[in-house]
Amino acid sequence: MNAINHRVGIKASPEKIYQALTTDAGLSTWWTNDITGAGDVGSIIEFRFNGGGPDFLVTELSPNKTVRWQHHGNMPEAWIGTEILFQLQVEDKQTFVRFSHSNWQETSDFMAHCSTKWAVFLLSLKDALETDHGRPFPDDISIDHN
Amino acid sequence: MNAINHRVGIKASPEKIYQALTTDAGLSTWWTNDITGAGDVGSIIEFRFNGGGPDFLVTELSPNKTVRWQHHGNMPEAWIGTEILFQLQVEDKQTFVRFSHSNWQETSDFMAHCSTKWAVFLLSLKDALETDHGRPFPDDISIDHN
Repeated sequence: MNAINHRVGIKASPEKIYQALTTDAGLSTWWTNDITGAGDVGSIIEFRFNGGGPDFLVTELSPNKTVRWQHHGNMPEAWIGTEILFQLQVEDKQTFVRFSHSNWQETSDFMAHCSTKWAVFLLSLKDALETDHGRPFPDDISIDHN
Repeated sequence: MNAINHRVGIKASPEKIYQALTTDAGLSTWWTNDITGAGDVGSIIEFRFNGGGPDFLVTELSPNKTVRWQHHGNMPEAWIGTEILFQLQVEDKQTFVRFSHSNWQETSDFMAHCSTKWAVFLLSLKDALETDHGRPFPDDISIDHN
């Protein structure tokens, strides 16, 4: 199995970052402006990009420390069976967000695209918390011309 | 073995991108401003960041298509034995750069950091070619506060 891994350090408390990962309002500051359903374990979050987009089932929440989602539904097809994990760790002057999107069946061009795009969105999370100016879709940085 | 994968689409010819991956002048527009040694297969390129940094042996060059480097020397330790591969592919209105940094012994926090940082530098490569304003070190985007 293959995984995408990223790590950013944010000048914000784990409480603030956890909020940005577990509420519709928080998630919409950095990933996409169209998000519904965030809540407790068992919730299904619908992330939409121009109408389409993935759903995730919230499978683990440890306040201010861990957020785990299981991909839910049938699209995008390459994401079926994949899992997303955010782990927060405070170190002296910042909180590190360790991200993984794991259980990919193969290392494809699409996986490579998603890897770059996740970096863009994690930097958007960093900006949302540090400057109040995240870049959620449709204002996200383009990584290609499609 | 674990790998970092990325993919960006650039509005530039494969010839221009290949130049930016195979010459000191080109590499210094997007990764770090202190680069020496780029050349044919067998060259050792020294990438420096405030004095320290990795060396890479050029192991494969296929003009306007493939650039492969083998990590050389003893630092950073986690990079020993790793390989970097750039593959260029033209599609209608852009050239895709498929990047991998492979053969990592383990999926560490440092690997996750490098994954995010490679995305930043590949977007710097894209900007360097499309706008003439790359962000090589020391003007690169910070992903943490270290």
